[in-house]
Amino acid sequence: MGIRIGILGYGNLGRGVECAVKQNPDMELAAVFTRRDPEAVSILTEGAAVCQISKVGEWKDKIDVMVLCGGSATDLPVQTPEYAQYFNVVDSFDTHANIPGHFEKVDAAAKANGKVGIISVGWDPGMFSLNRMYANAILPGGQDYTFWGKGVSQGHSDAVRRVPGVKNAKQYTVPVDSALQSVRAGENPELTTRQKHTRECFVVLEEEADGAKVEEAIKTMPNYFADYDTTVHFISEEELNRDHSGIPHGGFVIRSGRTGWEQEHSHVIEYSLKLDSNPEFTASVLVAYARAAYRLAKEGQWGCKTVFDIAPAYLSPKSGEELRRELL
Amino acid sequence: MGIRIGILGYGNLGRGVECAVKQNPDMELAAVFTRRDPEAVSILTEGAAVCQISKVGEWKDKIDVMVLCGGSATDLPVQTPEYAQYFNVVDSFDTHANIPGHFEKVDAAAKANGKVGIISVGWDPGMFSLNRMYANAILPGGQDYTFWGKGVSQGHSDAVRRVPGVKNAKQYTVPVDSALQSVRAGENPELTTRQKHTRECFVVLEEEADGAKVEEAIKTMPNYFADYDTTVHFISEEELNRDHSGIPHGGFVIRSGRTGWEQEHSHVIEYSLKLDSNPEFTASVLVAYARAAYRLAKEGQWGCKTVFDIAPAYLSPKSGEELRRELL
Repeated sequence: MGIRIGILGYGNLGRGVECAVKQNPDMELAAVFTRRDPEAVSILTEGAAVCQISKVGEWKDKIDVMVLCGGSATDLPVQTPEYAQYFNVVDSFDTHANIPGHFEKVDAAAKANGKVGIISVGWDPGMFSLNRMYANAILPGGQDYTFWGKGVSQGHSDAVRRVPGVKNAKQYTVPVDSALQSVRAGENPELTTRQKHTRECFVVLEEEADGAKVEEAIKTMPNYFADYDTTVHFISEEELNRDHSGIPHGGFVIRSGRTGWEQEHSHVIEYSLKLDSNPEFTASVLVAYARAAYRLAKEGQWGCKTVFDIAPAYLSPKSGEELRRELL
Repeated sequence: MGIRIGILGYGNLGRGVECAVKQNPDMELAAVFTRRDPEAVSILTEGAAVCQISKVGEWKDKIDVMVLCGGSATDLPVQTPEYAQYFNVVDSFDTHANIPGHFEKVDAAAKANGKVGIISVGWDPGMFSLNRMYANAILPGGQDYTFWGKGVSQGHSDAVRRVPGVKNAKQYTVPVDSALQSVRAGENPELTTRQKHTRECFVVLEEEADGAKVEEAIKTMPNYFADYDTTVHFISEEELNRDHSGIPHGGFVIRSGRTGWEQEHSHVIEYSLKLDSNPEFTASVLVAYARAAYRLAKEGQWGCKTVFDIAPAYLSPKSGEELRRELL
């Protein structure tokens, strides 16, 4: 029997977890939990159950790790501490500023109940954080840069859709290539928000909407667009569906730093991701950390962890011997 | 008092460790051990001792972590198991095929004496291995690529210098850009040795040597050059010293893989290094892992470890709270 995985929340991320479990032979999907009517939810995995979220208590001994696939705004702040009482859990909580508080709550719940909770798993926070941390430890004298994109920002797309006159929209965050090149060259530039990223919007107007007004409303929107150079393209609904239905993303974490007695040598460490599907990649990271949660729980290492606290070998199905022989 | 570091072997790597310790305020260099006459060895750190290697036993309680800076061919296979009896040790053993055997010996010595030994630390093995492992765990359906360079290969430079008629030489390993681009595009190419890297040699001839013969001898040398497209440039000793005295290196670890129920989405994970000084960067990684060795020893986690076995947070001087707040 493989590691029994539960999925709580069956949107893009939950479906991504389902696909990732299929690629890992040491795991099996036990059940998907949903707020919707389970009869109305059709999943892809034969033999896995679909259950109303209220029935989750009945699965306490039938699931090794519950992967929480809700949103960071309202779902996870409540769900992760709650379900860490009953299950080993993994989440992708990504509100950076609230991570310390989230950690404390999940830690208390998990420790009190002999469970493991791994939070803020994905690529940022997640793999990007790991790479920032390793690079900082190796090059203490240096500077960090994170660039996002090219990719779809869900939050910014939503913001555009809320503008009166907008029927539908997709927003791409695009790193500025000249800034990226300067960082890669070890020039340690000081970059403003505007110098790091541009924003590109593809907008379907409502009939009779005033394009010029919509464009002005988008470009001057505080927090979301005012600090960026933003381009607005008006397209048809057909074009939007044909050319912009994917959820690609990615980005770059770069640290440049100096070594030598007089800091005479320069080094650049770069980690980058180019993702066709943001939710499926995030899900793949979640599933690797679900394996870690399972093993940490077997060892009795209760409490809340982040990617910083987990030895890399816990993520791999290979043994220590295999890892040393094949990947070191 | 900081973590007391010892350096065993004071060549390029040992000097790199000395420089790295200077950049880490929680560490101090206690002593450098050398096979040479200590009077003839001048180090940079005020207040640190220089000792004959035979006196190392007297430092058993005055050093927290000994960083072993010998070579992988003959030094480390003997030194790491030997000194793991007396000290927590870190080495950069890089003969990939012999890592499993080295691990066993260091593990036995360290466990029997209540010490921690971390082996094969640096960038390959080391950071490249870590990135191969993380990427494999996240994208089980995928393919790995490692490219080295552009950088100086010490082994290949030595091989060129052994050719009759060669007075001095430097050899650069250069990744083939078109191969790199194909991998980055997620095309999963099958690449031969020749298609991945070229080799570029800068050679100073002995007086009266026959350039054509030397070039032929280099280009047909089995194992080192015969399987590659090799370019040989003849230059003067002055040019060699002026333009090729550095020890730059670097490279790329790329994994491309697919996700989705029908593997419909492609992803590319890339980690790259661009290093002005190969030994100083390797030394910087060794020093970060020396911190980990110190902490693991405090926790009584005896035995041999590799980068796979050590939670990232052990490398950082920051606390868990600081890491979550600043870098997650």
